[in-house]
Amino acid sequence: MVYQATTSAPVNIACIKYWGKRDTKLILPTNSSLSVTLDQDHLRSTTTSRADPEFSKDRLWLNGNEEEIKPGSRMHTCITEMKTLRKKTVEDNDSSAPKLSTYHVHISSFNNFPTAAGLASSASGFAALVFSLAALYQLPVSLKDLSLIARQGSGSACRSLFGGYVAWEQGSAANGLDSYAVQVAPESHWPEIHALICVVNDAKKGTSSTAGMQRTVETSALLQHRIKEVVPQRMENISKAIHEKDFDSFARITMADSNQFHAVALDTSPPIFYMNDVSRAIIAIVEEYNRVSMAATGHLRAAYTFDAGPNAVIYAPESSIKEIVQLILRFFPQQFKDPFGLFREEDMAGKVPEGFNEGVSRVWEVDSVKGLIHTKVGGGPRVLGEEEALLNLDGFPNEKVTRKWDL
Amino acid sequence: MVYQATTSAPVNIACIKYWGKRDTKLILPTNSSLSVTLDQDHLRSTTTSRADPEFSKDRLWLNGNEEEIKPGSRMHTCITEMKTLRKKTVEDNDSSAPKLSTYHVHISSFNNFPTAAGLASSASGFAALVFSLAALYQLPVSLKDLSLIARQGSGSACRSLFGGYVAWEQGSAANGLDSYAVQVAPESHWPEIHALICVVNDAKKGTSSTAGMQRTVETSALLQHRIKEVVPQRMENISKAIHEKDFDSFARITMADSNQFHAVALDTSPPIFYMNDVSRAIIAIVEEYNRVSMAATGHLRAAYTFDAGPNAVIYAPESSIKEIVQLILRFFPQQFKDPFGLFREEDMAGKVPEGFNEGVSRVWEVDSVKGLIHTKVGGGPRVLGEEEALLNLDGFPNEKVTRKWDL
Repeated sequence: MVYQATTSAPVNIACIKYWGKRDTKLILPTNSSLSVTLDQDHLRSTTTSRADPEFSKDRLWLNGNEEEIKPGSRMHTCITEMKTLRKKTVEDNDSSAPKLSTYHVHISSFNNFPTAAGLASSASGFAALVFSLAALYQLPVSLKDLSLIARQGSGSACRSLFGGYVAWEQGSAANGLDSYAVQVAPESHWPEIHALICVVNDAKKGTSSTAGMQRTVETSALLQHRIKEVVPQRMENISKAIHEKDFDSFARITMADSNQFHAVALDTSPPIFYMNDVSRAIIAIVEEYNRVSMAATGHLRAAYTFDAGPNAVIYAPESSIKEIVQLILRFFPQQFKDPFGLFREEDMAGKVPEGFNEGVSRVWEVDSVKGLIHTKVGGGPRVLGEEEALLNLDGFPNEKVTRKWDL
Repeated sequence: MVYQATTSAPVNIACIKYWGKRDTKLILPTNSSLSVTLDQDHLRSTTTSRADPEFSKDRLWLNGNEEEIKPGSRMHTCITEMKTLRKKTVEDNDSSAPKLSTYHVHISSFNNFPTAAGLASSASGFAALVFSLAALYQLPVSLKDLSLIARQGSGSACRSLFGGYVAWEQGSAANGLDSYAVQVAPESHWPEIHALICVVNDAKKGTSSTAGMQRTVETSALLQHRIKEVVPQRMENISKAIHEKDFDSFARITMADSNQFHAVALDTSPPIFYMNDVSRAIIAIVEEYNRVSMAATGHLRAAYTFDAGPNAVIYAPESSIKEIVQLILRFFPQQFKDPFGLFREEDMAGKVPEGFNEGVSRVWEVDSVKGLIHTKVGGGPRVLGEEEALLNLDGFPNEKVTRKWDL
């Protein structure tokens, strides 16, 4: 009997940003956050977990390379917590259930997007890990309960356990039991939201978000005001915007919160910069696009957001995404891979809409934006078939973890 | 009889930044600010004013080009207020005094630094204007009273009426009579403070500070917290640091407040960026320099500050300024004009101190920083001799206003 499960989990990109922990061990945040889950058809982490009495220790491979599971590490915490749940919720109630919690595990995980893309893989990675162990262990627990464990791997991972529009409630309990993810709306509620990820070239290695956010907590004179006075209202307003499919409000709040996150990073000592001149140019282009759109239709048609790096994610309704891709191609000429079949060859040259002031940005050198990924809102983690497994018969990573991503 | 006066006034660069007006007509700020006045031997505005019953209207030339004095403009307000003061404080008390307040004026003003340097010339310009009219009109009034008028020309101009270390008290009166400049300490109290202005090349024309600050007032969710909770404490602390010649505190507050000003600019909708990748590199270099210095001596040795543009001003004690110039030359190779005679030819190559991590910045292309201006804390406005006058015998700009600055 082989005890094994393979699952995939999606990337999520926050509209209300998580920045600051009140408990660094349990990963309890200083404010609630909210994200859009992106479609796993494009970006995903896949994980196979196997429990076997023959294994001599817990082992983990990321993209085929073994990573040490250090005692007390976040990875160690997640695996231990999952074994404890197996014992408590399955084995203690059913003496006939195999004692998987006592077996060691082998885990093989693969991200289908390159680290070089600068997309945080920890969210989808820890979500896939926790979800695969839950499948392996056949746990009778809710996604909310799993989100409590994924959160301890990487805070934002808790949001990748749900599809659609997802909030991470900060909670107030010292033990973190009320700091979990909840689905604000499923992807089917508002499926028209597309996303264009602009992968920005950056020579400079930025401050890690783990180190950066704690420096902000310790030194920013503005962060506490953001936490107490700004975010709670924004969480309420953006949830309402999502329920009402009100893109104007969604866009306004998303852009304001991205900018405010980078503002408190800058208000840190020493200051933290994640955006560079290319990021600034993308902001200028999207702001000008919205200005034109407001003048013509009274509505916004795009919203940028930036995580702890220079990459832009542009959220837009399906009806404007082609125009936005063309706009970006105008200033950042490149080959564009078109997953939705929207483009003919001649559309790839890039163009700007009527009335757009092209002076807002220069045309950038090739590779300033080194890739564009077009995706959309998507669903939560999936249990995959045996044919997708990332472990071979002996319980070691198979050739599937060396597949190349052609960004 | 020719009624004419020529004066010069200095540039000032704020450590606690002015950003936001509570009254845009009277130019009343939302928070107090504090600056260092820079030496007029290096950077200055010079202004000659003449009153003559033969003149047919008030006229003004900036660097030889006539500027229209529009009714209701800031320039018009300053000239009108100065004439009113002349009448009230001189002519109404002494019937033998010539009625200069009834004559039209010709004003010729010259900045010895190019507009391209991106240094705000409005502060030194309005200070020189008001000071020259005060000299022309022989006004028996204090610098504080003059600062109330200069403030209405350009807010920060009020600080250029004093030398040394100068606060602009925000005041609370609706008529603005308690919103004026005061000297915190004269330049002689702490003459060791030097300044290195790094003139940064920027393709993009930034948002004007007048428009930008009001957009921040209207849209930033963080500005009010800065105004109410952060700045008052910083004003107190930096004044104390100046009185105690405590460079560590002075530097820490100066850098934090520059960063916070740019943070609230970024927290504006649409966001405002004044710093670019070169500005970020200068911050990284100064932060690394201070890190090395802290490790070696327990003290900071440099403080950067950025106004509404990409230029850096680095304040440093005299004892470290040569090392800082060499550091900047290391990453931004260029010819350096050495006004203090500190450098031998071989020092110009640039170098970094022991232990400095050169990975914090790449070496930039020539002209990324297109000029370095080394100056120091200096005195307030000066009355100059007739030989410095910028008007010819007929009352029109003379050849002195076409002198070229060789940045």
